[in-house]
Amino acid sequence: MRSGFVTVLLFFQLLFPRLLTTGLPLSVQKAGSAALSGEAAVEEVLRTQQDAWNHHDLDAFMSGYWNSPALTFFSGATERNGWQATLDRYRAAYTSPGHEMGQLEFSGLRIEMLGADAAFVRGSWHLTMSDGKTPHGLFTLVFRRFPDGWRIVHDHTSAAE
Amino acid sequence: MRSGFVTVLLFFQLLFPRLLTTGLPLSVQKAGSAALSGEAAVEEVLRTQQDAWNHHDLDAFMSGYWNSPALTFFSGATERNGWQATLDRYRAAYTSPGHEMGQLEFSGLRIEMLGADAAFVRGSWHLTMSDGKTPHGLFTLVFRRFPDGWRIVHDHTSAAE
Repeated sequence: MRSGFVTVLLFFQLLFPRLLTTGLPLSVQKAGSAALSGEAAVEEVLRTQQDAWNHHDLDAFMSGYWNSPALTFFSGATERNGWQATLDRYRAAYTSPGHEMGQLEFSGLRIEMLGADAAFVRGSWHLTMSDGKTPHGLFTLVFRRFPDGWRIVHDHTSAAE
Repeated sequence: MRSGFVTVLLFFQLLFPRLLTTGLPLSVQKAGSAALSGEAAVEEVLRTQQDAWNHHDLDAFMSGYWNSPALTFFSGATERNGWQATLDRYRAAYTSPGHEMGQLEFSGLRIEMLGADAAFVRGSWHLTMSDGKTPHGLFTLVFRRFPDGWRIVHDHTSAAE
């Protein structure tokens, strides 16, 4: 009797795999990395980056970037190649003596999927420093999906001239 | 006899469609828009843009962009929205009185596919003006494939500060 029910269930699952999956509790469905939509996953990386910056945690901020020598960071006419060079640039500009990280706000985020495993983001960044200065500008980010999640593989940042 | 041969040929084509297609002359195969690889098609758009610029043909240069109000152009902290605003920006900066287009060179092009219908390009731009000045910088382009070919849907350009 029991094995008969299992057979019917398996047959039903073959016919309607989605129906059974969507019957699972949401927490179970979300456990899979594929369950979170690309847009939501990318948005979470950016929210995590903003929070990390505002806690002055540069290491956590950097976790949004692909940890690879192939990461690229463009600003002005200068290209940084690799995760380490990108970190060094942030350290020099924001955590070295005489500098500060300030408070960061992203706005105008537009996340656009470019396939199952790629997306790009257009947005604005705005910093508020303790002396009242407000550096700001635009960014373009290219994201790719890796086995451990979505990461920025290219960052192009520009500032008000 | 002839119809028998056609039947066999049709049956053969059903079984091995690629085999017969690859037997066609290359020119016929290339006639289809899908035949040119994404990288090659994107590179051709950029080469066409560079040539058009250097013939001071802004209209031909603009044909590389998606002709849509949804096209975006980022530079500094300024966002232009739409094809017309992008054209207006080029006109103001390069063809209005007291300005010139100069000679344009793209270099360091890295075309990376992000799916069947999307790609992004990292590269450098370098202008040589008649007075000897050489404005230059970096760009990030996002391309999408449309029925009539590949077009830039987003351009982020920055210059030496």
